[in-house]
Amino acid sequence: MCQLLGMNCNVPTDICFSFTGFQARGGLTDNHKDGWGITFFEGKGVRQFLDPNPSCHSPIADFVRTYPIKSKNVIAHIRRATQGEVKLENTHPFIREMWGQYWSFAHNGDLKNFTPALQGNFHPVGNTDSEQAFCFILQDLKKSFGDKAPSLEHLSKRLHELTLVLATFGVVNFLLSNGEFMIAHCSTRLASLVRHAPFSVAHLKDQDMAIDFTPLTTSNDRVAVIATQPLTQNEQWTIHKPGTLMILVDGQIIKEFETVAGPEKDCPAS
Amino acid sequence: MCQLLGMNCNVPTDICFSFTGFQARGGLTDNHKDGWGITFFEGKGVRQFLDPNPSCHSPIADFVRTYPIKSKNVIAHIRRATQGEVKLENTHPFIREMWGQYWSFAHNGDLKNFTPALQGNFHPVGNTDSEQAFCFILQDLKKSFGDKAPSLEHLSKRLHELTLVLATFGVVNFLLSNGEFMIAHCSTRLASLVRHAPFSVAHLKDQDMAIDFTPLTTSNDRVAVIATQPLTQNEQWTIHKPGTLMILVDGQIIKEFETVAGPEKDCPAS
Repeated sequence: MCQLLGMNCNVPTDICFSFTGFQARGGLTDNHKDGWGITFFEGKGVRQFLDPNPSCHSPIADFVRTYPIKSKNVIAHIRRATQGEVKLENTHPFIREMWGQYWSFAHNGDLKNFTPALQGNFHPVGNTDSEQAFCFILQDLKKSFGDKAPSLEHLSKRLHELTLVLATFGVVNFLLSNGEFMIAHCSTRLASLVRHAPFSVAHLKDQDMAIDFTPLTTSNDRVAVIATQPLTQNEQWTIHKPGTLMILVDGQIIKEFETVAGPEKDCPAS
Repeated sequence: MCQLLGMNCNVPTDICFSFTGFQARGGLTDNHKDGWGITFFEGKGVRQFLDPNPSCHSPIADFVRTYPIKSKNVIAHIRRATQGEVKLENTHPFIREMWGQYWSFAHNGDLKNFTPALQGNFHPVGNTDSEQAFCFILQDLKKSFGDKAPSLEHLSKRLHELTLVLATFGVVNFLLSNGEFMIAHCSTRLASLVRHAPFSVAHLKDQDMAIDFTPLTTSNDRVAVIATQPLTQNEQWTIHKPGTLMILVDGQIIKEFETVAGPEKDCPAS
């Protein structure tokens, strides 16, 4: 299995503090040592750092931890391989372009016998179940909505239906973003918190490090952090109920859907 | 205009030396200060570093210059904006997935009134002529060859035809790679050299730096370096004839096509 870290904010914010704790889990405080990656959206553009080496020993991860890149949507992932070798092409997050927007996806879980028919525009480069799931989602969205991006409401409804399908194949905790919003699915484990005024001091669980957000923020700032497990020891994290799909905009969960896995289905040929 | 740097080798090689000279041109020894980027192919995977800031002052460029990433195909670009604002989404190289392979593209030049009909799978995220040209190329290749990658011979022939079309809209020096081979087009300016045994000492033009490749290489290594202008002062660079499309495999130019711009044509609706 793997671990996920996401951030969705109303103002561009750096993720250095949360990433410091997260990086340690990639081989130091936890055993997710099969690579790591992070996607930063900046406007319509996207920056990505990937490394098939353990994040705790990665010079690129050290760089990301110390160089503040401000973003409203960030997705990070540390990998413990279940399907697919430890290689760069199997390192999450994955990125594709659809509707003139970049989309980024990271997955924690294991989808058994998931071999969707991908005849369309999106094909996996590596050989993980995760990249297959991402291509399956994008292919279906493109087929459902054509050449123009739908409203977030319509997109969310379709993603809910797709997640129900994916959940029948196994564990599918995921983060998905196009830089405007973030979709988070808790299949088994996902925690979140929203930081807003009055800000205070946060202490990491995985490293001896604390930060006072007060001088770094304004009273309007709103930052949602989502992670497989809580990253700080003195803040109130919400532990999400398994089977919850969340839509986050501007640092706020604006909608939740229930996703309870049904009986196993044949692989959809979409 | 911008500057291009490409490397195509028969063994994974780091580009730190060449990138040191190239980085200086992004605001120090030359005026290409509107961002920079670099793509490294590693197996089927791809790593990309992008920054809309000048490369000579970029901490990310400093990192890339000092952290050896070994790759058989590298594309780098420093930008002096002609079309499209200085933003991350307009920073080259661009990347898309096609046929289960990542493709990377960087462009130096200026295409006038180039507005191809992009109804297919590839849409620009930013607003440069360069990203439009990349999407136009991929859309045509997908349409020409369907869901399966053609042989390099067939692909090259079609790329030759497409380059003839692009050249009617203006200057189109470009580098394109899928990690297996590199396509380089000299519309106005492109130089190259191939390093092979016996290796010797090379001196950069843009920085006071020299390197002896002898202890770093084997007698079988073959490294082709392509750049808008020669990067070293004591090596024999080939200055390519304007209107030359080159196919590079394993550090060798295996084929050349002539591309001479014809009369201006209507924008193709492919």
